[in-house]
Amino acid sequence: MEASAINPGTRSVAEDCASAKSATRALASSSTGVKNQALVSIAAGLLERADSILAANAEDLADERAHGLSEALTDRLRLDHSRVEAMAEGVRAVAGLDDPVGELLERRTLRSGIELSKIRVPLGVVAVVYEARPNVTIDCAALTIKSGNAILLRGSSYAERTNSALAEVVREGLSEAGLPVDSVVLSTGGGREQLAELATQDGVIDLLIPRGGEGLKNALKAVATVPVMYAASGNCHVYVHSKADLEMARAIVVNAKVSRPGVCNAAETLLVDESVAREFLAIVLPDLRDAGVELVGDERTVAASSGVPVAPAGESDWDTEYLDLKLAVAVVDNLDAAIDHINRHGSGHSEAIVTGSEEAALRFTTEVDAAAVYVNASTRFTDGFEYDMGAEIGISTQKLHARGPIGLRELTTFKYVGLGNGQIRG
Amino acid sequence: MEASAINPGTRSVAEDCASAKSATRALASSSTGVKNQALVSIAAGLLERADSILAANAEDLADERAHGLSEALTDRLRLDHSRVEAMAEGVRAVAGLDDPVGELLERRTLRSGIELSKIRVPLGVVAVVYEARPNVTIDCAALTIKSGNAILLRGSSYAERTNSALAEVVREGLSEAGLPVDSVVLSTGGGREQLAELATQDGVIDLLIPRGGEGLKNALKAVATVPVMYAASGNCHVYVHSKADLEMARAIVVNAKVSRPGVCNAAETLLVDESVAREFLAIVLPDLRDAGVELVGDERTVAASSGVPVAPAGESDWDTEYLDLKLAVAVVDNLDAAIDHINRHGSGHSEAIVTGSEEAALRFTTEVDAAAVYVNASTRFTDGFEYDMGAEIGISTQKLHARGPIGLRELTTFKYVGLGNGQIRG
Repeated sequence: MEASAINPGTRSVAEDCASAKSATRALASSSTGVKNQALVSIAAGLLERADSILAANAEDLADERAHGLSEALTDRLRLDHSRVEAMAEGVRAVAGLDDPVGELLERRTLRSGIELSKIRVPLGVVAVVYEARPNVTIDCAALTIKSGNAILLRGSSYAERTNSALAEVVREGLSEAGLPVDSVVLSTGGGREQLAELATQDGVIDLLIPRGGEGLKNALKAVATVPVMYAASGNCHVYVHSKADLEMARAIVVNAKVSRPGVCNAAETLLVDESVAREFLAIVLPDLRDAGVELVGDERTVAASSGVPVAPAGESDWDTEYLDLKLAVAVVDNLDAAIDHINRHGSGHSEAIVTGSEEAALRFTTEVDAAAVYVNASTRFTDGFEYDMGAEIGISTQKLHARGPIGLRELTTFKYVGLGNGQIRG
Repeated sequence: MEASAINPGTRSVAEDCASAKSATRALASSSTGVKNQALVSIAAGLLERADSILAANAEDLADERAHGLSEALTDRLRLDHSRVEAMAEGVRAVAGLDDPVGELLERRTLRSGIELSKIRVPLGVVAVVYEARPNVTIDCAALTIKSGNAILLRGSSYAERTNSALAEVVREGLSEAGLPVDSVVLSTGGGREQLAELATQDGVIDLLIPRGGEGLKNALKAVATVPVMYAASGNCHVYVHSKADLEMARAIVVNAKVSRPGVCNAAETLLVDESVAREFLAIVLPDLRDAGVELVGDERTVAASSGVPVAPAGESDWDTEYLDLKLAVAVVDNLDAAIDHINRHGSGHSEAIVTGSEEAALRFTTEVDAAAVYVNASTRFTDGFEYDMGAEIGISTQKLHARGPIGLRELTTFKYVGLGNGQIRG
């Protein structure tokens, strides 16, 4: 375990968490102007210090540990001038978003005469555990500063030097705006034990967001006692109904699978209504094949595939998030069977029906249990920017607190404030 | 483990959960009218079947297991005609509340042209684990039916026969309204192993609410992988500021401690500003003593107690929820010290300041981190009925999802519904 520039001693995870906690009271009281000033300073600092950030990044990339990384992971770790500029631009964009803190959600006079207000307030300390993607350091810091939260950033040791350089810029920006530098704490090093220590900081960590694979999620599920919001896996479906415009369906299916197969809102399974299966598969399967998509299907799909190679799907295919140019295809008897399939196998992320029937659309959107349900649109639209929510920290497939994109408002809670003039309860 | 009337075989917890899950799709689509019809039928059924409910309750009370219960617990278990009538009245009151399901929370047209709606929907399956209080069976069933959720009720074996009789009435009411009887499933028997089985039904149980002591909460924290909302403990404070109207403060402190000491919104600690300590303690301590309150205090309080017995407080007193006629009292230097004390020792439930200063009030309500903060009012007002939210399933001191009273809306989530006309993402 190496010491980071920000954290030169060997502080424990609990000490890092306590530092972040110490910043929460000042942060919760800080004005929108002060928070925006910090963000603007951070954006400027990123550009001014780009060379030293890139130098730190080059050291991370040159480290022998990084030699084992796949090309895709190395690409995620690598920064260049345009990526630093994009980070700065992202921070400025967060400065331009509405401040969620202080929003009056409800106000009423109770029978007792107490004036009760329900007011949006920061959560307190948010912790994010993430992989070797330095832009996450900046994105998450910006979102938490704007929402009045302190953040504990637990990045990957692969990105240790880059993250330290970035965190230094962030803390300087905080300091220039008069906010506590411990509003953003970088906690590096250690393994599963430190993760478990983090996940059990009850009363200190108000929300823990793991961004990473299923292994990280399962490790946390086993030990976490603090509130956790799991960034989503997306086993998303497109269902082509009997009343679908098949040309529209064709475009949507190809878009949902092919436009960016590695993201959570990409489709993983195509369900085709039996009544249009032969006709639709004849047009969509060649498109998918030509786009390089590997196809697996149920018996009826294989039978109707006329010349396009479709391998028989195994039972596990219906539950798999390929995150790749691969698609499972099934023919279903009707709308009910499609909804059943989705509710059984889906991960509650994004689901789409293509149909010209309003009745079918209403049943689908009511009965499918997912964060986002679409009628005649691609699943790919589930995204904070597309939803006009600004930057997001991830997509939630949980039902509690936040469902769908986790933006600024989803990083807040509320409190009831009751103003009285001596009320006592009878 | 005895078989219940409702569950005559020996079904596993997982089977009970699956039964409840099977009801969710029909429930989520059911109209307000149908849900209200079920509630009205249940209310009528409770009155019609009062004699058999009371007979079952008499058997529970006569059971040798019940002989070990304290007087207070026996009183909670005992039903009589007026308590059955109160349950029926409570169910009718829930029928009169607004249906949260289907509420349009937001609607906007995205740049893509998609019409995006954010719509309130049921959570799915709610599980409640509770002690031997038969009224909880009915209260929780009514709230979940109205909010379109299925419920798994895990009551105490002490109340097994009573709960079975009540559940039978509930299920008949559901059936009369054409709702699935498995919307309400009573799961009885078994111990910690069954509790662990319940707490790990990922993808089936959408929310688990334990109502019970710290032992139950800690047992769940160690094993739960499903979302849990812990009904609150309340270590609540009243802070008497230097600018307080001392007669108002006196009435609020006595009310907050004495009016119902066994509930979570009762005050457990009094903080008095140093500048008014001698004057205020001279009037409030005799009142508290006369009301039978046992007093413990810090050094300055003991020194200023002039004749009223105040025992020295130990460090643990500041963290203790007495739920009894006992109060810890401390003199604090100023507003900052009061906020520090509350944020360190409070449980985030309900906190009050008595002050004539708007500036002090604003700092207190902004910087104290709790579900409810009051200015010049008793902590006792944190309550679903007082807040005009109707019945509640408990009070949450969590920050995620629901904070404060957990009523109908807090038993819902939302989904995004996107209506397009062929949108694909570029």
